[in-house]
Amino acid sequence: MNSDAAATRAGRPLWCLALLVLCGAGQAALAEDGYDLWLRYRPLPPAQREADRRAVRAIVAAGRSPTLDIARAELARGLDGLLGTAPPFAAAPTRDGSLVLGTALTSPLIAALRLAPGAAGREGYVIRSLRYAGHRLIVIAANEDIGVLYGTFAFLRLVQTQRPLGNLAMVSAPRIQHRILDHFDNLDRTVERGYAGESIWDWQKLPGYLDPRYTDYARACASLGINGTVLNNVNADADSLTPLYLRKTAALAAVFRPYGLRVFLTARFDAPIEIGGLHTADPLDPAVRAWWRSKVGEIYGLIPDFGGFLVKANSEGQPGPENYGRSHADGANMLAEALAPHGGIVMWRAFVYSQGPTDRARQAYDSFKPLDGKLDRKVLLQVKNGPIDFQPREPFHPLFGAMPRTSLMLEVQITKEYLGFATHLVYLGPLFEETLRSDTFARGPGSTVARVIDGSLFASPKSGIAGDANIGSDRNWCGSIFDQANWYAFGRLAWDPNLAARDVAEEWVRLTFSNDPAFVAPVVRMMMASREAAVDYMTPLGLAHQMAPSHYGPAPWIEASRYFNHADAQGIGFDRTATGSDAVAQYAPPVATRFADLKQVPEALLLWFHHVPWDYRMASGRTVWDELVIRYSRGVQQVTEMRQVWAGLAGRVDAERFAQVSAFLAIQEQEARWWRDASLGYFQSLSRRALPAGYSPPQHDLAYYEALCFPYVPGVWGERRGPLCR
Amino acid sequence: MNSDAAATRAGRPLWCLALLVLCGAGQAALAEDGYDLWLRYRPLPPAQREADRRAVRAIVAAGRSPTLDIARAELARGLDGLLGTAPPFAAAPTRDGSLVLGTALTSPLIAALRLAPGAAGREGYVIRSLRYAGHRLIVIAANEDIGVLYGTFAFLRLVQTQRPLGNLAMVSAPRIQHRILDHFDNLDRTVERGYAGESIWDWQKLPGYLDPRYTDYARACASLGINGTVLNNVNADADSLTPLYLRKTAALAAVFRPYGLRVFLTARFDAPIEIGGLHTADPLDPAVRAWWRSKVGEIYGLIPDFGGFLVKANSEGQPGPENYGRSHADGANMLAEALAPHGGIVMWRAFVYSQGPTDRARQAYDSFKPLDGKLDRKVLLQVKNGPIDFQPREPFHPLFGAMPRTSLMLEVQITKEYLGFATHLVYLGPLFEETLRSDTFARGPGSTVARVIDGSLFASPKSGIAGDANIGSDRNWCGSIFDQANWYAFGRLAWDPNLAARDVAEEWVRLTFSNDPAFVAPVVRMMMASREAAVDYMTPLGLAHQMAPSHYGPAPWIEASRYFNHADAQGIGFDRTATGSDAVAQYAPPVATRFADLKQVPEALLLWFHHVPWDYRMASGRTVWDELVIRYSRGVQQVTEMRQVWAGLAGRVDAERFAQVSAFLAIQEQEARWWRDASLGYFQSLSRRALPAGYSPPQHDLAYYEALCFPYVPGVWGERRGPLCR
Repeated sequence: MNSDAAATRAGRPLWCLALLVLCGAGQAALAEDGYDLWLRYRPLPPAQREADRRAVRAIVAAGRSPTLDIARAELARGLDGLLGTAPPFAAAPTRDGSLVLGTALTSPLIAALRLAPGAAGREGYVIRSLRYAGHRLIVIAANEDIGVLYGTFAFLRLVQTQRPLGNLAMVSAPRIQHRILDHFDNLDRTVERGYAGESIWDWQKLPGYLDPRYTDYARACASLGINGTVLNNVNADADSLTPLYLRKTAALAAVFRPYGLRVFLTARFDAPIEIGGLHTADPLDPAVRAWWRSKVGEIYGLIPDFGGFLVKANSEGQPGPENYGRSHADGANMLAEALAPHGGIVMWRAFVYSQGPTDRARQAYDSFKPLDGKLDRKVLLQVKNGPIDFQPREPFHPLFGAMPRTSLMLEVQITKEYLGFATHLVYLGPLFEETLRSDTFARGPGSTVARVIDGSLFASPKSGIAGDANIGSDRNWCGSIFDQANWYAFGRLAWDPNLAARDVAEEWVRLTFSNDPAFVAPVVRMMMASREAAVDYMTPLGLAHQMAPSHYGPAPWIEASRYFNHADAQGIGFDRTATGSDAVAQYAPPVATRFADLKQVPEALLLWFHHVPWDYRMASGRTVWDELVIRYSRGVQQVTEMRQVWAGLAGRVDAERFAQVSAFLAIQEQEARWWRDASLGYFQSLSRRALPAGYSPPQHDLAYYEALCFPYVPGVWGERRGPLCR
Repeated sequence: MNSDAAATRAGRPLWCLALLVLCGAGQAALAEDGYDLWLRYRPLPPAQREADRRAVRAIVAAGRSPTLDIARAELARGLDGLLGTAPPFAAAPTRDGSLVLGTALTSPLIAALRLAPGAAGREGYVIRSLRYAGHRLIVIAANEDIGVLYGTFAFLRLVQTQRPLGNLAMVSAPRIQHRILDHFDNLDRTVERGYAGESIWDWQKLPGYLDPRYTDYARACASLGINGTVLNNVNADADSLTPLYLRKTAALAAVFRPYGLRVFLTARFDAPIEIGGLHTADPLDPAVRAWWRSKVGEIYGLIPDFGGFLVKANSEGQPGPENYGRSHADGANMLAEALAPHGGIVMWRAFVYSQGPTDRARQAYDSFKPLDGKLDRKVLLQVKNGPIDFQPREPFHPLFGAMPRTSLMLEVQITKEYLGFATHLVYLGPLFEETLRSDTFARGPGSTVARVIDGSLFASPKSGIAGDANIGSDRNWCGSIFDQANWYAFGRLAWDPNLAARDVAEEWVRLTFSNDPAFVAPVVRMMMASREAAVDYMTPLGLAHQMAPSHYGPAPWIEASRYFNHADAQGIGFDRTATGSDAVAQYAPPVATRFADLKQVPEALLLWFHHVPWDYRMASGRTVWDELVIRYSRGVQQVTEMRQVWAGLAGRVDAERFAQVSAFLAIQEQEARWWRDASLGYFQSLSRRALPAGYSPPQHDLAYYEALCFPYVPGVWGERRGPLCR
């Protein structure tokens, strides 16, 4: 992914390229290690290549700006790889098959035809086939250079996925303003809940050395329309705000800027004390306010388009305004005021809970609902998709729909902290989709989470969505090839929350692997089934939070898990109805009613909202005990089938990635079986019921599973790893 | 570096390959990121390619074994890349230009001609041009398969470096038995003193997933003749010896085995307590001895060719026999006894010191000399090149030559803990060479360190050399391209300690970059001057240990540094003569006399052995103060010149690696200037002398340098990082 190499290839004689293609210099002959993500510009099959060469004979892209230069370079690189040679650049669209890029400022054609409508907004684009002055043209038009870049990536996607280029007519604009990756990267390069190697930010060598990976990161983000990145862990380190690190951050921001990618930082609430020398961090203290104004000014002096701060406060040990007798609103508003003159925002996390008797699922709502209307317009409240913490399945967070006077943004987790780390193949598109399409009923039916976070439901001044990144230094960026699909799906859904997860999966498979229908169809099916498989083998029927302290493997017997499963000799499940914690009441009445009623609650959330006896009859007629056994077993069986499907695809893609996926599926199958066996072993010790006929008992006794211990689970350090293994 | 891809390329029609070459599909057009190390098989220039194709028209390599299969595959891969197509395999040498590989067991020709002499030993090889039955042949012969593999890599080196293949007549065999990399890798994937990313051992995914990188690691080691690897940190974790990790280690050992690379582990001395449940680790306790015998048996059950243990005991907090009132010999011998039935060895580190009044440079000798003759024959004492700790320059370790009844092995540091981490270009070949050629005078002149460690000086039963690895997950393996040269030089000098560092540098440049003389000559010169440049800008004239606690940057003012520089208003330097610590007396008399005499001591070691007044006159007539200023400044100037040389080579190699080297040289220049300015600022505050005319003062005042603080220096954690920056 080296632009010089691309330039060299682009300059090679056409006949060489043709022969290279004929000699099969592309395709499966080239080793693939995942580094190119979905931006693999491999030669198209001959027929498609010919057709597309006729469709794109020249590129007309006037205008010089860093962003337009990048768009041009990406187009040349992409078409060079896909078509065998990049079409030449031309000054004007004087031939059939001219591909015209630009804005009204840079292209007389686009200005004359008013091709970039208001609907495209600041970041959107239009791609259209049209005739002009007797020539067939394709036009990629936007109102701003960044829209041209996004449109260029969209166009390349069409070519990569072998769509016909004849009658293009698309307008695409994002509705969500801030589409952000949250990196949980620490300054020592460890990544909290990271399973893809160490942090990609090589702080020691910044600002002097700009790793080409930073550019490729920006390209990947731009290809998805991701426009913001928080570089450091929400469990923040005030050192990130010192001049030493701000200079390094500024160097990264300069690399990202022309890709439309703005840098954000997490702000350690006690920074005024820790690096400012003040004696308090009270947000109402004038010296503290002045310190933050000054610090923000310092940041903008180095990074003119700095995005703003992400803050985790008074949560899991992080300092915050409540340490000073102030509210979350006080803290958020103070930072918003400091950032406002510069156009920056505050993203304030709603992830708070305490180790008390109150149902953890209630706590964020109880803490933040009263603050509705009290937060500054520049503040976005960053709310996780569900009220616990990124479990394989959670109901949507009750705060969505409950704070009409606050701009809420959604936070999803792309890194698979609770879904098998890097080795389990779990496509999260369905999870994201499920959340976005959840109906809060806040303003009647259709009050989806998507409409809350795109700002349309409540006319919110700001909108956003964040994904906790799964990116690290691993060659394949994400720990596994299929984990790339989750970064991809996050970006595509952030751009357009109405996309179907299945369509996004198909897009990704075509870009990343192959357009061969014999490959695409089974792999998309496999991906679409994978999330439910993980739910089944880990925490079916609405169970949650059953993992070991390190988050690797099952431990339903530990106190933290028992709190969530409430399993005993009589039954299982967490009563969140009025007879229990009444967390249901935090939802709008139609939703609350449905969740609270055993006859209406989706089976997938049964044990989230209800405590039922082991003999409780499901709709199928089976007891909940039998259903649990069946679900756990089905999850494992699903992975076995995934292995078989994948094995049958040998030879259709490169050997290296094929082998890695195969090896990971084998690990996933072992670990799925472990989850099933350990969980059923524990629950059976309480239910004392037989397994239904035909279902095998756990391979080992419960003591075996309880004794398993892993001293160095990745992504977590110190005592949060769990008890020592000795 | 994917063998499947290589196989595919090898199967491509010749005309395709020819055209690929003509189209310049190789050479500088391909992006290079350093992953291929010195095993880049890029197409030769046309004339050389033609000549070599005539010289190698067919490969005759019968015999099936994992090692021979690897040799064949490497040859095919290499020649395919270099010549444009791999010569076909043939059953017999029936044509001119047959390249015959094998042993007497696998090749009738080699058996008949008795081509593998005893002199080749177990691991050596012969490469000869000869005529047989009317045909011109090249033969790579060895006594064992591993020798064939080593010979294959040597042959490929000849081709890569464009040597004529006409009249080959080489016999090469290593004299040092154990040629080992010591990885300071922790189980959580941090690497102590590592500047190349996290550990390459992905423990979490082992044994289920075998990263292709493990194979490429083994190839790289085999190409140098490295035959052992210690996987884990000498600051050991007993978890490495638990079944969980032994199974993972066994999986790695299986990957390495056919490459002749045996696995070793560090043994935490207190493992019997920490994981064995015993109440003591007393090496004379029968239960402890039994525990180790059992543990070793368990290891060999999983890893039949396990190499043995490396132990750091009673040093820097590591437990050891002295905790139980026993000696190092007691501890080492216990482990040797446990390993002996299985053929394993013990490498026991002599790196001990305590924070007391005794000169640290004396302590290892004082501790271990009395144990000469008391260590089991299976024990190698692993001794660092010098008596402190891998400083830019140290005199050779006084233990070399002082323990005639012990097998001593040399430990050098490849990772640049004290030499600028990953960004400073410092070629360590001269440092290794300097040590190996040091004359201990133990048995009169010619009693070099090389002869001590190859066993010849004292007829030692075992011999070895270890390099503390600089390898990590960075794409370029070593943190920087030029750091690869240090891994390379270590391996080549381990194989043959008589090689010249300059020749090894030239070899490496040709393999790694280019055979273009206009590139090779200046780069080799640059490399050969780089170590002395670092000595000059960091610690000239025999100074040592002047770095900050984290080992990043200078701190001559801190207590630890002042202990070593002994600078005050009167003078500078450590008196190690009879009027001081008398460390000189630990050397053989001719050496001791030379070091002790101000008129004979090499200027490079002046301040190591002597405390002199600031006005002490050097041979040049200059005062030592002036000389210090000149040396520090010369070191910086040297880096400036390196930058100029490198800049002038633009376009002669690929842009990506060129750019990285350029960026790192700029960082090195800044840091060299920092070292100079901070050091001179401090020493001037004591000497109160003016700088000689024409030499610029430090850019900042001393307080500036003293205040610099870096909270997250790589390669070190916790309090060893140094004081907090706040």
